Amino acid sequence: MDLHSPSVAVVGATGAVGAEIIGCLDRRGFPLSSLRLFASERSAGKVLNYRNQSLRVEPCGADAFAGIRIALFSAGSAVARRFAPIAVQAGAVVIDNSSAYRMASDVPLVVPEVNRATIAGHHGIIANPNCVAIIAVVALWPLHQAFGLRRIVASTYQAASGAGAAAMEELRESTRAALDGQPYEPRVLRQRYAFNLYSHDAAVDLGTGSNEEEIKVMRELRRIMGLAELPIGVTCIRVPVLRAHAISLAVEFERPVTAEAARAVLAVAPGIRVVDDRHSNHFPMPVEATGQDDVLVGRLRADTSDRSGHSLALFVAGDQLLKGAALNAVQIAELLLAGPG
Amino acid sequence: MDLHSPSVAVVGATGAVGAEIIGCLDRRGFPLSSLRLFASERSAGKVLNYRNQSLRVEPCGADAFAGIRIALFSAGSAVARRFAPIAVQAGAVVIDNSSAYRMASDVPLVVPEVNRATIAGHHGIIANPNCVAIIAVVALWPLHQAFGLRRIVASTYQAASGAGAAAMEELRESTRAALDGQPYEPRVLRQRYAFNLYSHDAAVDLGTGSNEEEIKVMRELRRIMGLAELPIGVTCIRVPVLRAHAISLAVEFERPVTAEAARAVLAVAPGIRVVDDRHSNHFPMPVEATGQDDVLVGRLRADTSDRSGHSLALFVAGDQLLKGAALNAVQIAELLLAGPG
Repeated sequence: MDLHSPSVAVVGATGAVGAEIIGCLDRRGFPLSSLRLFASERSAGKVLNYRNQSLRVEPCGADAFAGIRIALFSAGSAVARRFAPIAVQAGAVVIDNSSAYRMASDVPLVVPEVNRATIAGHHGIIANPNCVAIIAVVALWPLHQAFGLRRIVASTYQAASGAGAAAMEELRESTRAALDGQPYEPRVLRQRYAFNLYSHDAAVDLGTGSNEEEIKVMRELRRIMGLAELPIGVTCIRVPVLRAHAISLAVEFERPVTAEAARAVLAVAPGIRVVDDRHSNHFPMPVEATGQDDVLVGRLRADTSDRSGHSLALFVAGDQLLKGAALNAVQIAELLLAGPG
Repeated sequence: MDLHSPSVAVVGATGAVGAEIIGCLDRRGFPLSSLRLFASERSAGKVLNYRNQSLRVEPCGADAFAGIRIALFSAGSAVARRFAPIAVQAGAVVIDNSSAYRMASDVPLVVPEVNRATIAGHHGIIANPNCVAIIAVVALWPLHQAFGLRRIVASTYQAASGAGAAAMEELRESTRAALDGQPYEPRVLRQRYAFNLYSHDAAVDLGTGSNEEEIKVMRELRRIMGLAELPIGVTCIRVPVLRAHAISLAVEFERPVTAEAARAVLAVAPGIRVVDDRHSNHFPMPVEATGQDDVLVGRLRADTSDRSGHSLALFVAGDQLLKGAALNAVQIAELLLAGPG
């Protein structure tokens, strides 16, 4: 197939991630020959802008993918399960942002900074990982290469955007209501969000007590890094932040580690900006990660709960809609163009 | 001294914690004979209500404590260092909410649910611990008694109230400005707070990379529990929440532990309400901890980063102004009344 100047489709174009995918394609000068935008019947007919063209959003049907070479899906698992095979049948490579195919053995789960070589093994579908897994692994992978991961304890501070544009709007609206002393009934999220935080609303596994978000993060981190047995504990919490996730990490390594050695490793790692200024108390923050391609990494120090000299604490922040979703998908598409394919 | 119906003073009466101390004295029917309220020169002259009495706030001077039997201080370290010895000299027992005396060997550091017996060893000053340390230790102590603490990894989600009433107002004002698209220059806190979070603004130790808040939490947890060598790692983060802290904990124990066994222990522990409903995804939240005396404890499950069966993950939330500060101080005062003193 011609991947030098491919015809591209975005499925779920009117969502929060879809908008960022279109933005990334534009900003990064993706060499597409044509762009088609798909969404649900409800959103079809909207007109979106791409490079001064007005593009009409089309409903996603069974014959939508004729001639499409790369289809970027950001429309949830049900849409992916229904339409990704159809797109592949029509000749497209699908890069899917949902969790539908992430653990399928014939579907690469890709973060370009970590495992770009696995792309070559695709059979038409490539999965874009969970946003927390992507943002964490960009920081963890270079540390693994240098020191050897042995154990990860993570607590997340997750933004509204992970639940979509409507959740971002609910955070704004409910916060305004709280400031005005007005009642507000949540519609998108189950819990009060204004000036509150809560355990991630994904379903809880009644046996283990982990929720589905935590299970995704753990198994996807293991799969992306190829560390099938890596012990990981994750607590996923939603905080009243709009669109950048933060993660507090305590990590044990096979080999001795110091903050200085870790900082030196991270300073030259791809996709990372070290923000670690103890003098001025300047560390990764969601507002500074917002709109940035890089994952911000800081608070690098010995984890004082382990006196062996093998543990590190760190704090990361990354734009959930960019590196956590749209940017990573577009980077995968760029690798398809650059590859032998 | 007569501690059956003592004369009481509140120092720092116009602050966020001071107001809650007055509220706790009232609500709990503290049997005081008289109440005097002190604050800085700037706040002196204000009139506050206590049980339908209007009390004029007095400036805190060298002769302020004549006749006072219990002085509840919530005015910061500088005021405590200056006036607590004067109050003791005048015959008062001081319960101080600042960090000034917390690590002094002749000053008990008290959380009644944990180490009430240490009150007897006071020499006029009793210290009220750091808010995160109090909220964490109420949950950790019964687990320690049952299973034996071996290691703690904690990440906090700290509310604005920890920085005082002005910080709470700044969170509200800056959030309104953000919603309105208006600029806002932080005055109380160094960082943008609206829809953001950041590493605690306490000074960072340049050698270890821990900040002063984290250092307080670690050393106070060890001191309150009498576990001088307990390995603890803490990451302290301020989140845009008004007045209840949350803490994500991963804890290793000497003995095997299960979520069920931990739940049974916590269900009968003082000062705790177990909020741990996997079916309905209902777990501790700041908005539900607000105004509550109890610390909410939930998300009880095996810490999947340790396969030995000795580790537990949990999530707690507690009102920073109540159990984290004012309530704990008033509970100490109640113990003074009840004790042999």
